[in-house]
Amino acid sequence: MKKFNIQENYPEQYCHCYGCGKKNMEGLRIKSYWDGEKAVALFTPSDKHIAVPGYVYGGLIASLVDCHGIGTASAAIAQENLESSEDTKLKRYVTASLHVDFLRPTPLGVELKIIGRPVKIHKRKIVVNVEIYSDEQLTAKGEVIAVPIPMNMA
Amino acid sequence: MKKFNIQENYPEQYCHCYGCGKKNMEGLRIKSYWDGEKAVALFTPSDKHIAVPGYVYGGLIASLVDCHGIGTASAAIAQENLESSEDTKLKRYVTASLHVDFLRPTPLGVELKIIGRPVKIHKRKIVVNVEIYSDEQLTAKGEVIAVPIPMNMA
Repeated sequence: MKKFNIQENYPEQYCHCYGCGKKNMEGLRIKSYWDGEKAVALFTPSDKHIAVPGYVYGGLIASLVDCHGIGTASAAIAQENLESSEDTKLKRYVTASLHVDFLRPTPLGVELKIIGRPVKIHKRKIVVNVEIYSDEQLTAKGEVIAVPIPMNMA
Repeated sequence: MKKFNIQENYPEQYCHCYGCGKKNMEGLRIKSYWDGEKAVALFTPSDKHIAVPGYVYGGLIASLVDCHGIGTASAAIAQENLESSEDTKLKRYVTASLHVDFLRPTPLGVELKIIGRPVKIHKRKIVVNVEIYSDEQLTAKGEVIAVPIPMNMA
């Protein structure tokens, strides 16, 4: 499977997310790219995303882990499915649980590299590990448990 | 200890947080109130805080858990200290780890009630449980481990 942008391939009715939706003009517009094994996103927090002067606030880090983790899950499942079909449309997953360990302060003004790796893939539950790097230094790591979008949200 | 607004009592140099800083005019401005045993905040997500149509995105829920949890920790420690001193200024804590379980979709357009309860209080580590209610229904619960602001952030 070639490298592709994950959020561009979400179904049109599920592209509104404040964190990563291409249709949300006020949102963060996180863009995740799948390379066949992992997903990578680059994101530079803006000055307003401050915790205390000089550092990124935790809610933004959590948003990056969440949206990128969900995207990683969606791409990983699509790749599994592609081994047996030609349906390339990504299915939309949502977060059952989110965990973030803040290892050191994440500085503002630096482009962050976010890496997501699927570690367990079941049809109805995908576990994704996410790492956030600032200048090659790991500042936060997280885990997302992704599940298919439930009927009452779809 | 009387009911008071927590973020109003943070030191002036630590009031910039996008989630809860009174000095961040573009932020969420979460306001947490301590009543002596728990902290309560009310927050209504705006339309832009969407996940999929009708529901709040996970990153906002995580931000509410994070900032409110940290505020709860700060107030709980202040109360402990007040038993032996008159220093009412709140100390600033930061997040070592954050966990959120998304129990059911959180609808947009509804005021949320966020409740934080300290469950373990040590001088250098406070564990806080946080619950988020929409119309009396628990939609998410989380845990924050708070630690004093480290030297390299202060």
